[in-house]
Amino acid sequence: MTEQTLDETHALAQQLRVDSIRCSTSAGSGHPTSSMSAADLMAVLMARHFRYDWQQPDDPANDHLIFSKGHASPLLYSMFKAAGVISDEELMTGYRRFGSRLEGHPTPILPWVDVATGSLGQGLPDGVGVALAGKYLDELPYRVWVLCGDSETAEGSIWEALDKAAYYGLSNLTAIVDVNRLGQRGPTELGWDLDAYVKRVEGFGCRAIPIDGHDLGEIDQALTQAAGADQPTVILARTRKGRGFDEVEDREGWHGRPLPAEMAERAIIELGGPRNMVISGLRPEAGSVRVRADGEVTLPRYEAGVKVATRLAFGQALAAVGARPGVVALDGEVDNSTHLEEFAKAHPGRYFEMFIAEQQLIAASVGLSVRGYVPFAATFAAFLTRAYDFIRMSAISQANIRLCGSHAGTEIGADGPSQMALEDLAMMRAVHGSTVLYPSDAASTARLVLQMADRGGVVYMRTTRGAYPVLYGPDEEFPVGGAKVVRSSADDRVTLIGAGVTLHNCLAAADELGRDGIAARVVDLYSIKPIDTATLLEAAGATGDRLVVAEDHYPEGGIGGAVLQAFNDAGHPVPISHLAVRGLPGSGTPAELMEAAGISAAQIAQAARDLLGA
Amino acid sequence: MTEQTLDETHALAQQLRVDSIRCSTSAGSGHPTSSMSAADLMAVLMARHFRYDWQQPDDPANDHLIFSKGHASPLLYSMFKAAGVISDEELMTGYRRFGSRLEGHPTPILPWVDVATGSLGQGLPDGVGVALAGKYLDELPYRVWVLCGDSETAEGSIWEALDKAAYYGLSNLTAIVDVNRLGQRGPTELGWDLDAYVKRVEGFGCRAIPIDGHDLGEIDQALTQAAGADQPTVILARTRKGRGFDEVEDREGWHGRPLPAEMAERAIIELGGPRNMVISGLRPEAGSVRVRADGEVTLPRYEAGVKVATRLAFGQALAAVGARPGVVALDGEVDNSTHLEEFAKAHPGRYFEMFIAEQQLIAASVGLSVRGYVPFAATFAAFLTRAYDFIRMSAISQANIRLCGSHAGTEIGADGPSQMALEDLAMMRAVHGSTVLYPSDAASTARLVLQMADRGGVVYMRTTRGAYPVLYGPDEEFPVGGAKVVRSSADDRVTLIGAGVTLHNCLAAADELGRDGIAARVVDLYSIKPIDTATLLEAAGATGDRLVVAEDHYPEGGIGGAVLQAFNDAGHPVPISHLAVRGLPGSGTPAELMEAAGISAAQIAQAARDLLGA
Repeated sequence: MTEQTLDETHALAQQLRVDSIRCSTSAGSGHPTSSMSAADLMAVLMARHFRYDWQQPDDPANDHLIFSKGHASPLLYSMFKAAGVISDEELMTGYRRFGSRLEGHPTPILPWVDVATGSLGQGLPDGVGVALAGKYLDELPYRVWVLCGDSETAEGSIWEALDKAAYYGLSNLTAIVDVNRLGQRGPTELGWDLDAYVKRVEGFGCRAIPIDGHDLGEIDQALTQAAGADQPTVILARTRKGRGFDEVEDREGWHGRPLPAEMAERAIIELGGPRNMVISGLRPEAGSVRVRADGEVTLPRYEAGVKVATRLAFGQALAAVGARPGVVALDGEVDNSTHLEEFAKAHPGRYFEMFIAEQQLIAASVGLSVRGYVPFAATFAAFLTRAYDFIRMSAISQANIRLCGSHAGTEIGADGPSQMALEDLAMMRAVHGSTVLYPSDAASTARLVLQMADRGGVVYMRTTRGAYPVLYGPDEEFPVGGAKVVRSSADDRVTLIGAGVTLHNCLAAADELGRDGIAARVVDLYSIKPIDTATLLEAAGATGDRLVVAEDHYPEGGIGGAVLQAFNDAGHPVPISHLAVRGLPGSGTPAELMEAAGISAAQIAQAARDLLGA
Repeated sequence: MTEQTLDETHALAQQLRVDSIRCSTSAGSGHPTSSMSAADLMAVLMARHFRYDWQQPDDPANDHLIFSKGHASPLLYSMFKAAGVISDEELMTGYRRFGSRLEGHPTPILPWVDVATGSLGQGLPDGVGVALAGKYLDELPYRVWVLCGDSETAEGSIWEALDKAAYYGLSNLTAIVDVNRLGQRGPTELGWDLDAYVKRVEGFGCRAIPIDGHDLGEIDQALTQAAGADQPTVILARTRKGRGFDEVEDREGWHGRPLPAEMAERAIIELGGPRNMVISGLRPEAGSVRVRADGEVTLPRYEAGVKVATRLAFGQALAAVGARPGVVALDGEVDNSTHLEEFAKAHPGRYFEMFIAEQQLIAASVGLSVRGYVPFAATFAAFLTRAYDFIRMSAISQANIRLCGSHAGTEIGADGPSQMALEDLAMMRAVHGSTVLYPSDAASTARLVLQMADRGGVVYMRTTRGAYPVLYGPDEEFPVGGAKVVRSSADDRVTLIGAGVTLHNCLAAADELGRDGIAARVVDLYSIKPIDTATLLEAAGATGDRLVVAEDHYPEGGIGGAVLQAFNDAGHPVPISHLAVRGLPGSGTPAELMEAAGISAAQIAQAARDLLGA
């Protein structure tokens, strides 16, 4: 409850250094020198500015602390010891060990960690999302503090973050950059040129405060200024890597290397020996918030046969799901294409425009998820590839984010291959714990959007540019993990499997086959992951293992891959006639391009005939 | 050969506007207003500064022009008409049509286009790569001109590019930003605040020249200054979207919309009617360069049984392949981990440090490929996800780039999941025309690195952190698309398929099974794409279709997916016992983590026994 004096804070900083050395030497790996450079910064923050109830990490009024330089985990975990929430024994025997929660880089399996870091340049963008929630949604006075490395300022994502922080006036956000001038393999680009950093930060609309990162008074003053600023603050702290132990201080060759035992002993002596201070720091101001994820939703209803693009249905359904006050939406400056504009119009206070910065789009979603919101983020499916590292890390962060990728596949037509997502299903399927949905009509889209809101992990929906007929009634259920047998009879001789646009091609192919007297079953595989293995097995069994799978995606890792894996995992491998985009598309009409890719109705019908020897 | 007067240049600009309108109206899609804002800029560039032999686009002394705002393709193609290299008929009947080379966004199927654009924020980073070649390798006076949109400056990759342009002193690079203040859905973040742009550009170490982008004299002066600058130049041109036609000029709602026919007629009248000027512009200075991709290579040789990490072998082999003068290498500030430092030491003049900026790492490789160099780029495999959009676009650019991702899978151990590539094989397999390699030992790595140099498209190699025994002799061949049967006998009852680290686990499993009297065939699937279907079929046939596939990757889209697809494509589906990483890993030793993932030797042996009912 009491602020520590600067003398006590110095002792705390030395303790953090000693513990950073001890735990990494004990583990035989880790980044002690990257921890030592930032120890003074974190000691002053922890002792005199960070408002946090360590016993109640879920207190909604708590400040947030994100280690964007996740490799400084020895320092973070040493802070946890100093806060009295982990024991010295856990620190010494757990760090980087199998089964321990003290992983090599921080993850939210620890209650005091918001997001996984370790892929550089992500913690600050994540912090922007948390700060957006604080300023615009929670309206609470908590602050978001982010410790960044200097090397990671080479990542464009850092500048996407500062740009958005300034645009949204996130005065509750403070980045503290540990400018220790040494990266992994040698000096950084800018070294200790704080002036260069200041110019960049100010150019991006944030307040820059250059300081000596080992002067506790300067640090204290800068953190005080940051807390009172009316714009985001970036503290640029000149530091020395390995600070406090002369044998390694400011020397190359010590990144990611624990000190050998005998060096560690000397270092600990130089740093004043082991300490076991426990400090409580400042408690948060009282404040509470309840994010309401529930609420009555009236989904839009679509008349069967009317042509509606699934991207439009997505936007309309999301606007309806916005009746739940916890639902928020973000877009990458294409909301008139993704149709997130429907949500933006209905709920402008919960819509965040991220402009053309897809990495920040995902990171902001992760940050909003940290605060319990239910974020939906959308852009062209092709451009979600821009943020794959962020999506991958979201899964490690155990964030609950919902993504919509519009304009998928060759179906988009004249814009050409740069705008065509043809790898997105493979990319999203490979994300740990992900859900991958690809509805074919407006009715199923609407029902699935509602389920996305309730589902955890990374949940992806692929939508289609063109308008296609509504196939289903508004009350039909589309459980995630299900599939829909759209057409079937006792005489079915072949099964046509599609999703999204190719489902329509499959239906037209079934019509064509029907005219030839060939009954075809049609399966709408709207849920690619998880997948409805039972329906696939049943269809295979009913149609003599004659299956055609058509997808508007490259052949690797998409719908065909999911189907083959499902059959294999069921122990019943079934061959598929696999129609996918095998060439590099150009421009054209959707019909021309799907024909060129070999996924048109006529080609699906022909593949079926080939299976039947007809 | 002659410079145009500014009056003639005005007429050219109006022609470019008229043709941009005509072709997009004729196609019924496209971005005329985004073309009209930049027409004056491009007219002055083309008529008075751009040194280019339009009849000989392969002339090595030619300047380069990259449309980073690829949606302004009507303007670019109108320039091609004005240069006399495409006809008005082609422009009017080809633009955005099926089978035409005038695609919706530019691609290098056109001889005057270097790289595909259309995913914003990539053309300038690509240009940095071309300019690196010009300054450091070709040492020719050609200039690289990049037309950027203002909206795309929200992409962090633009700042990665300017950062590297300044770091490498690329005075031969000029970015021209068309600040028309309107994005797709409305105003940009910074509008016409040129001062804000100037601060950012100067903060990143480049020269900023703010101008009125419709004042031909100012444009001309700025381009002249750029050509004489000693640092990279960014011309910040205040423009009006739709400039020249009052009904749309500077109005919202006209992004990506062709003018309806009757509006187009009025616009063409307002712009002075159709013109058919052909200008030749300036010819390049004489200059030639011959990138030598050949040369005698003596690969490192490794003694069988010695433990060598494949990442080290990669670096050593690449240093050897560097005997070819055209080979260049780039790294993302981890060359002491990827071991690209071996190349850096041997060939410092052909090594480019990109620091922690993976998007720029890939883009620079693409730019170097444009100039005929043979780039190899490396970072941790996990961090290549950061650049997936760039890798995807590389394929559309038909660039020849070689990527190495080190530290793959749970095998990396204590650093934890943020550093573990577990999606990279899925991601890379889905890239059009890609090659995916994953060698298990130093000898095969070395042979494959040499082949990477000769192979086109996106060629990816996954390497392993830990050191494992050399399995093969130095003269053994490892053709791309092959597989190696490492162990076999006439009595084989089961096949164990691995690649990289799991190949070693498969061998240990075969040893264990052998002790139980079970003969197991072991296949080294070092080439994941293309894949050696014949060897897989033969092994399946010889071992009663009993196959175990073990991979240090998530279950979707990796080695198991490739094997299932291969069998399916061969019309002979075979079930596999598929061991892959199904949970979210933490920290630990490699052995602990592979055991936890279920891909250890003992678990592979058990899976084999399960198949045999043993």
